[in-house]
Amino acid sequence: MPTIKLKAFTLLERVRTQSPVVHHLTNWVTIYDCAAVVKLLGASPVMAHAQEEVAEMTSLASALVLNIGTLTVEFVEAMKIAARAANAKGIPVILDACGVGATQLRNLKSLELLEQVRIDLIKGNASEVARLSGAAVHTRGVDATRVDLDLNEVARSLAARQRGTVAITGPEDLVSDGRRLFRVKNGHPLLGQLVGTGCMATSVIGAFVAVEPDLTLAATAALVCFGVAGELAAQGSPGPGTFKARLFDCLAGLDEPTLDRLQRVEA
Amino acid sequence: MPTIKLKAFTLLERVRTQSPVVHHLTNWVTIYDCAAVVKLLGASPVMAHAQEEVAEMTSLASALVLNIGTLTVEFVEAMKIAARAANAKGIPVILDACGVGATQLRNLKSLELLEQVRIDLIKGNASEVARLSGAAVHTRGVDATRVDLDLNEVARSLAARQRGTVAITGPEDLVSDGRRLFRVKNGHPLLGQLVGTGCMATSVIGAFVAVEPDLTLAATAALVCFGVAGELAAQGSPGPGTFKARLFDCLAGLDEPTLDRLQRVEA
Amino acid sequence: MPTIKLKAFTLLERVRTQSPVVHHLTNWVTIYDCAAVVKLLGASPVMAHAQEEVAEMTSLASALVLNIGTLTVEFVEAMKIAARAANAKGIPVILDACGVGATQLRNLKSLELLEQVRIDLIKGNASEVARLSGAAVHTRGVDATRVDLDLNEVARSLAARQRGTVAITGPEDLVSDGRRLFRVKNGHPLLGQLVGTGCMATSVIGAFVAVEPDLTLAATAALVCFGVAGELAAQGSPGPGTFKARLFDCLAGLDEPTLDRLQRVEA
Repeated sequence: MPTIKLKAFTLLERVRTQSPVVHHLTNWVTIYDCAAVVKLLGASPVMAHAQEEVAEMTSLASALVLNIGTLTVEFVEAMKIAARAANAKGIPVILDACGVGATQLRNLKSLELLEQVRIDLIKGNASEVARLSGAAVHTRGVDATRVDLDLNEVARSLAARQRGTVAITGPEDLVSDGRRLFRVKNGHPLLGQLVGTGCMATSVIGAFVAVEPDLTLAATAALVCFGVAGELAAQGSPGPGTFKARLFDCLAGLDEPTLDRLQRVEA
Repeated sequence: MPTIKLKAFTLLERVRTQSPVVHHLTNWVTIYDCAAVVKLLGASPVMAHAQEEVAEMTSLASALVLNIGTLTVEFVEAMKIAARAANAKGIPVILDACGVGATQLRNLKSLELLEQVRIDLIKGNASEVARLSGAAVHTRGVDATRVDLDLNEVARSLAARQRGTVAITGPEDLVSDGRRLFRVKNGHPLLGQLVGTGCMATSVIGAFVAVEPDLTLAATAALVCFGVAGELAAQGSPGPGTFKARLFDCLAGLDEPTLDRLQRVEA
Repeated sequence: MPTIKLKAFTLLERVRTQSPVVHHLTNWVTIYDCAAVVKLLGASPVMAHAQEEVAEMTSLASALVLNIGTLTVEFVEAMKIAARAANAKGIPVILDACGVGATQLRNLKSLELLEQVRIDLIKGNASEVARLSGAAVHTRGVDATRVDLDLNEVARSLAARQRGTVAITGPEDLVSDGRRLFRVKNGHPLLGQLVGTGCMATSVIGAFVAVEPDLTLAATAALVCFGVAGELAAQGSPGPGTFKARLFDCLAGLDEPTLDRLQRVEA
């Protein structure tokens, strides 16, 4: 695949200028980090899950992020209410398929969401997305399991079937709308040593799709920004704890020359 | 308003010596940070929300912090039970009106709390407190919205009506009991880039009102300490991630000469 | 007690190689940190609490960690379901008795767990474990209260009664199976200034018992690793915030010569 030049900074600048509200119904493990990265980018995160208020909160937002990392039946019902409000308003809905393939509940509830509301962007690691695409993949908990499938094809076909965008994150990230396919080669192994970087990536995507109607382009730009911040943060970090603090520094400080210079995207 | 000298360190020392238990019913986003700052000051945070135990846990505490950032109907019922126990024991109850003005549920439940239990100190950003005072303010999520009101008057009048203390935090903080008004000019813009600093400020206030019956003075001293720690932490911080780690360092290390030298309070 | 040499690194290496899944039902305050430390050691944390999926998630795991820090009645029911699955599979179940002695609910529910499912390892601070052993100890929240008891005897007798392992953490850690008693003298006072280090220690134990059937030895090795990482992290840390980031660095970077050189274990 040939390398392309993406105007990632143009979208980041739009996030900073418009400061869109990104409503999350997410998991209790990484909820702080999900909110933190959205705020560091210049957007306004809001976390609210009471069934009585989610529709109203979504109506204030420019994107909705659903993450089933610590789902319950009741929590997924709140997700559906919020997603219906997002669908009605016409703002994008992102589903992080965290842990799909590990339990029947996660398989069932993610399919319910895909069937009962419109999900505009599906995000997961290789095994989670493969499972959603129908492959008989069993994952061990929430970490990625090796999948012997052509991930390009998995992303493309699931996106085509859902008439939406699919993002598979890992050492390399793939983003497809069924027709186009982008490969983001930014990132750093330290991201894989930390809990929550997958969830953070989803929330970063949430901030970008809030300001750009081409969700596939927006998600690709978001993953470039997150990956480049990871590369910058890794420089001189003695380990994953210091790296995490620096990742936040670098996400907040991304500038145009750095993004132009370090981005590695193929299409 | 003339500058005054506050013995902030005297109260901080009391927190360190007495190590009061500060019981929280707070949100799931910043719950760790709320506990962390209370502990770093030398007090003993406890987070418990089961309706079956909140009254007993409050009975062990010297202050109760309620934060509706991720409220549910059931959670607010637990808050009421805890607040009644606090009222009966005579310990201060603080309400962080997180997100009031964003949804009907938050408006309704915060008013219910103000009516059904005694709230001794209301804390929020400008738009949240303006909304509680009766102004027709609509906020976008949980971040402050511009308010075209005299905030001094908002703080004073709400405090007078509630016969309690009101703290409005922002670039400058205001604390009033309806009669006195303190303005705290400490702080740093990096505090505004991080999720949870408003919640942390509330928890710091919780630790100070636990050791000082003059809640208005205690809240002012708390905001001085938090703001000075923010100023110290910002020195040499390359961004908000490193800043947050240093904020914790600086909160734990506050001393008398520094607080005396850096405090900027007007009354 | 004489000093002994423990092959802590052998077990750590096994954690890194096998990357066992450690299923947690834990509290909402420190849930991120519990997951983080397990991942930093090379294992795979998973947090799931829906009653519909906990048994299936436990069936994927090599150890189960229960922590009642922010318990509710419903949450404890999910713990029981998970623990029964763990018992059936024969994987170790660890109970962090967080806050036992503070409220009747915690006393009652921890005893229910001990009676209704098999708990293989009980972990708590001095006052929590003393209370579980039957002493009339009342704790103030979740921080340790001074206990005028022979802790060696408390650990030994509770372990013997439960036919399991007991770990009491504090300035010095004790681990006993009723017969053997290990004392770990590693650690640093900064660990005591941070919220969540007790919970983190429990999760580290979870990773070690997942790879070693001698739970008493595994827990001792885990506490050595955690304490040594704390000592390393404290070097040059200006305060508890920076220390926490470095603690994560050091946990991820532990090596054999350092563990051999710094470990201080008596038996």
